[in-house]
Amino acid sequence: MTEEQLQALLQEMTTAEKVGQLTQFAGAFYSEQEDSTPVTGRIEFPVDEEMIKQSGSVLGVAGATKLAAIQREHLKKSRLGIPLLFMADVINGYETIFPIPLGLGATWEPDLIEKLQTISAKEAASAGLHISFAPMADLVRDPRWGRVMESTGEDPYLNSLFAAATVRGLQGEGSLIAKDRVGACVKHFAAYGLAEGGRDYNTVDLSERELRDKHLPAYEAALEAGVKLVMTAFNTVHSIPATANSALLRDLLREELQFDGVIISDFGAVQELIPHGVAENEAEAAKKALEAGVDIDMMSLSYAHSLAALLDKHAIDSTLIDEAVLRVLQLKNELGLFEDPYRGVSLQKEQTIVGHPSHHAFAQTVAEKSMVLLKNNNVLPLTKQATVALIGPYADNQDLLGEWSIFGKTDQTTTLKQAVERYYTHAIYAKGSHLYERNDALLTEAIAAMEQSDYLLLALGEGKDRSGEGRSRSSITLAPCQIELARLAKETGKPVIVALFNARPLDLTELEPYADAILECWHPGSEGAQAAVALLSGEVNPSGKLTMSFPRATGQIPVYYNAYQTGRPLPPGSNERFFSRYIDIPNEPLYPFGYGLSYTSFSYSNRSLSAVEWDGSASLTVSVDVTNTGKIDGVETVQLYIQDLVGEVVRPVKELKSFQKITLSPGETRTITFEITHDMLQYYHSDLTYASDSGQFRVYVNGSSVCEQENTLTFSLVKS
Amino acid sequence: MTEEQLQALLQEMTTAEKVGQLTQFAGAFYSEQEDSTPVTGRIEFPVDEEMIKQSGSVLGVAGATKLAAIQREHLKKSRLGIPLLFMADVINGYETIFPIPLGLGATWEPDLIEKLQTISAKEAASAGLHISFAPMADLVRDPRWGRVMESTGEDPYLNSLFAAATVRGLQGEGSLIAKDRVGACVKHFAAYGLAEGGRDYNTVDLSERELRDKHLPAYEAALEAGVKLVMTAFNTVHSIPATANSALLRDLLREELQFDGVIISDFGAVQELIPHGVAENEAEAAKKALEAGVDIDMMSLSYAHSLAALLDKHAIDSTLIDEAVLRVLQLKNELGLFEDPYRGVSLQKEQTIVGHPSHHAFAQTVAEKSMVLLKNNNVLPLTKQATVALIGPYADNQDLLGEWSIFGKTDQTTTLKQAVERYYTHAIYAKGSHLYERNDALLTEAIAAMEQSDYLLLALGEGKDRSGEGRSRSSITLAPCQIELARLAKETGKPVIVALFNARPLDLTELEPYADAILECWHPGSEGAQAAVALLSGEVNPSGKLTMSFPRATGQIPVYYNAYQTGRPLPPGSNERFFSRYIDIPNEPLYPFGYGLSYTSFSYSNRSLSAVEWDGSASLTVSVDVTNTGKIDGVETVQLYIQDLVGEVVRPVKELKSFQKITLSPGETRTITFEITHDMLQYYHSDLTYASDSGQFRVYVNGSSVCEQENTLTFSLVKS
Repeated sequence: MTEEQLQALLQEMTTAEKVGQLTQFAGAFYSEQEDSTPVTGRIEFPVDEEMIKQSGSVLGVAGATKLAAIQREHLKKSRLGIPLLFMADVINGYETIFPIPLGLGATWEPDLIEKLQTISAKEAASAGLHISFAPMADLVRDPRWGRVMESTGEDPYLNSLFAAATVRGLQGEGSLIAKDRVGACVKHFAAYGLAEGGRDYNTVDLSERELRDKHLPAYEAALEAGVKLVMTAFNTVHSIPATANSALLRDLLREELQFDGVIISDFGAVQELIPHGVAENEAEAAKKALEAGVDIDMMSLSYAHSLAALLDKHAIDSTLIDEAVLRVLQLKNELGLFEDPYRGVSLQKEQTIVGHPSHHAFAQTVAEKSMVLLKNNNVLPLTKQATVALIGPYADNQDLLGEWSIFGKTDQTTTLKQAVERYYTHAIYAKGSHLYERNDALLTEAIAAMEQSDYLLLALGEGKDRSGEGRSRSSITLAPCQIELARLAKETGKPVIVALFNARPLDLTELEPYADAILECWHPGSEGAQAAVALLSGEVNPSGKLTMSFPRATGQIPVYYNAYQTGRPLPPGSNERFFSRYIDIPNEPLYPFGYGLSYTSFSYSNRSLSAVEWDGSASLTVSVDVTNTGKIDGVETVQLYIQDLVGEVVRPVKELKSFQKITLSPGETRTITFEITHDMLQYYHSDLTYASDSGQFRVYVNGSSVCEQENTLTFSLVKS
Repeated sequence: MTEEQLQALLQEMTTAEKVGQLTQFAGAFYSEQEDSTPVTGRIEFPVDEEMIKQSGSVLGVAGATKLAAIQREHLKKSRLGIPLLFMADVINGYETIFPIPLGLGATWEPDLIEKLQTISAKEAASAGLHISFAPMADLVRDPRWGRVMESTGEDPYLNSLFAAATVRGLQGEGSLIAKDRVGACVKHFAAYGLAEGGRDYNTVDLSERELRDKHLPAYEAALEAGVKLVMTAFNTVHSIPATANSALLRDLLREELQFDGVIISDFGAVQELIPHGVAENEAEAAKKALEAGVDIDMMSLSYAHSLAALLDKHAIDSTLIDEAVLRVLQLKNELGLFEDPYRGVSLQKEQTIVGHPSHHAFAQTVAEKSMVLLKNNNVLPLTKQATVALIGPYADNQDLLGEWSIFGKTDQTTTLKQAVERYYTHAIYAKGSHLYERNDALLTEAIAAMEQSDYLLLALGEGKDRSGEGRSRSSITLAPCQIELARLAKETGKPVIVALFNARPLDLTELEPYADAILECWHPGSEGAQAAVALLSGEVNPSGKLTMSFPRATGQIPVYYNAYQTGRPLPPGSNERFFSRYIDIPNEPLYPFGYGLSYTSFSYSNRSLSAVEWDGSASLTVSVDVTNTGKIDGVETVQLYIQDLVGEVVRPVKELKSFQKITLSPGETRTITFEITHDMLQYYHSDLTYASDSGQFRVYVNGSSVCEQENTLTFSLVKS
């Protein structure tokens, strides 16, 4: 349709038809086949047939045949023939499941993420979906929060790259969305990652400067990549729920950031303005959300019940409704739904595309790149000939797809046991323990298995039932029964290798001494078990690097690499009292941001800057020689961090500014050069201007966020 | 001196003399008798004789003879005869030590705190001190922070009452400070209690509205009470260290809040602007601090080294120095130091006043009122005739004065063992364990002692070496050796009573099932052991109520009663997923704000409001009948909380607005009436206006912050 046709359509619409476009209900209301158990949130309200008939979009249902049927039924009833939009959470894959986003972050490969999202989009589109609720661009620092799994980590810059890559992968190029793509929806605007205490749906408080400096960049990157939708966060921003926050949605998002796509509430969030205590009733909730800028009310009846009456009473401006409806119609138009409400979907096409072997092969590659070797005391890789006892509750467990894989096929997922048995000729298995509960009989079996083998491979972790939305934990340790298993393994004196399957940074302080090697496998997706074996066996050399710190204790939260400088930084190795520290643990996390081992080793030398004084305009470069000092090919992620030594406000101890992922042969040395741009030195000042200051900067180039002071360089920015 | 004389004096001063007035060094630089180990912070800089000669004030040294000698020597050298100011931390007592402030909070008796601060002032003044660095008005929510001991808790209103009471007690009435009083210094301005992760000296980030709504009130109360000094916080406020923050100190504190007293930095904080990363060198640190409004540079050489040179170079405005010096001179004048630099201090007077028996008797009364009975399964009180085994590392331990009792006499402090043996005829003692380390021999002795007695009284806790400044802990549990002791005691089947000595809310989740009764004794001061026995024995009925929540786990931090409403509040008793909760523990703390048991019991009935609609002008009252339903006299703290059900911003689930502490005889019923004032309904809106909104309010009147929904009342504010 042309813009004129869309406008004409809008003119023809009744108020009820308009309000319908602004409501979204779950698939269960449209199809009897759908399980009425909601994926997120509860459905406890009476949606009537009229609402369904008028509604504009559907949540959380997929499948070519099913959606075509729903669309067909809908169009029969729709007076003006306005097709439904189908939206769902396709986070780390549709049917072909990739690692959880926290694992994707560990690849440090935005291009890879773009490619996998292209596959996800292709599968989702072939299943009739139009929109995916990805990327989640929330900066995360609290592993108690179950949703850290859905973020790419604690760094604004990396998150920005991944958010933009996800948008490009899902949507493709151009303003119209190709039939093998879906629209993206960046969430949760804004700063949901700061939910207090890591408790889901909890309050957020932060300063405006901190919001702009640390939290907004990743959402902005998604906007710059052309994301079609923005989802509001459940939390408050400056004391007002995001969903009713016109300073956030109208002033910042619409006006300042120039976003003209669709703003959708999170699940039930409009209605929840009532318990949140900023609206007395549904009508006030609807009015506040619409006025704040929310176009679509997802899974609440506030808009459906109240907008028409508010309009009748002239309590809201009708242009607000018209603008919101027009944005929804424009989105439908961009998807080509007016021309083909089915977008060329067919069961045959779906069956050809969804779960294609090439997708699964790629999922394995991605999983291999996502896993992080946290520890290795010369025990890995484990040769094909080794006699291995595979033990643990995650060994024969198909729960590898992560909490958000709602269309993934858990029952068709290869377990680690299957993958190990395929590769290792001398492998035996014992469960050893349930995931969270001790079992004597299982333990006895495991001890027997340990006795029969030279190497003990423990598959431990926590399932998707302990991660994701609504799954915050006050303790982030492994279950005691799993720690016991590791301790018993260690007591055999045999090498103990731990493959960890989990969706948040865990407190591994208790486990660590029992393990000679630890491979963080995350919830790695459809082909994750095979990827784990490829790494454990050395068929593939590990290359993942953490993008979220692993704390030493729950009581160390929040711990993140880009913390602010304090007036009393603890000198390295000091144990003195009057510094910023805990008296019972070191300040450093157990495993820091940017950290990850390889089966080879790398050395860094000849770090140098092209100048020690810079005016910010010409080129300033930093170079380093990186050498593969081991015996096999290896991939290294060379990381550039900059610290502004004196700022107008207090500045972080360091910030990631660039990185290069390189492959080196044994003995090979390569000179890696980074260009330092002026933008890397800019930040939000106390008056919210974005600028740099003259003065000294420290440059860190290394294979993780940890870099000894003597290996740093400094230069001065001298602005004319 | 008259104001004119002060001005004339200022005119006569050289730059060096002026700068001297703005510096403060530790007593060790003035007296060879003084231990050079600093009480807080490190002394690692070369103070020269000239600096000492010119300096205006001295930190942390006391004693009539010693200070008179320092003053005498100083006046000999001082060209203009300007006397020194002597300042020190007299927090919960000078020689007569009262409970730590967190314990004082639990008395819910501001008048009592005023009275004890009068005693502290009297002792301190007789020892030659002029200024005490109290009150600390920081709102605290993170028990990992070692300095929670120095706050009165998590409530803005209560903290305000206590801060004002402390100021009144220390300073007395009127603008001149009487000779038996000292000037007060409210700290740490502002929001130091929010140090991230509870790690001391760490960054703070919060919104302006939150700062005003929750954090400023207690400092403001101290200002309104006429506090003479304000100390800057170590942390950032809106990304700028408080000590260099002119928006905070000049715009807010000086202009808006009209504070015209002395602003002093915290220990070394001016110099620390360099590591904090907002000043390149000492000169810039000095310039920023002075321009921000810091009058006195405590324990750094920034002012001493740089102000004169900055003035020479016209890099700072000389009027800033003059204003700061004048404020210091005015303070000295208010103390009468120009007329009598010794303020009538004598050794004889000091010996008569300090540690007077009446002071110690009062300290016991205060301690009795500060202790909180957390649990009692019909085992307490313990009659005089009981056979008691007193066991535990805190039983024969003089570490009862708390970290801030720098002039207290630990070696003269009565231990619980002494107090128990004085009272109970059949008491035996065994240490059982070291504080933090297990010991087999001690354990064996303890088990033997347990066998010989009917009642097991365990004295557990953590010492001052684990609390106070620079003593943040990542874990707030009791040491495992103490938990083991409790477990073994429980296994005897005999009643187990725990007396806890500690300075922060601990995670008592593991201890709780082993204890039939728990008495929170805090670090209770000079007469704390006797107070504990008075309560354990029933000579005095416990009446303390917590003012800071005791979390169930470190991972539940922060947990506080006046949290903000969320959009998904967990319904009582629910275990469902999609609500704001942790999946592994309940949302409620183990012991909530306002909670504390008595040996009698109280019932609440006939709650009623004088009106259900109110225009905010006339009187609205809420009344309740409180009955002593037990068998002995008891003291109850009746608490009034109000919840604003719908706000312009999200409002707390409830807020303490008033309370009354009453004594009831057995069977006695009293009608308690609270007047609800319009101010109780006001709060800071998003535009920072302080106002109320029309709408519904819920009223809770109960004996703690927990009150079932059916016992609440609601009224509407209908503004004309």
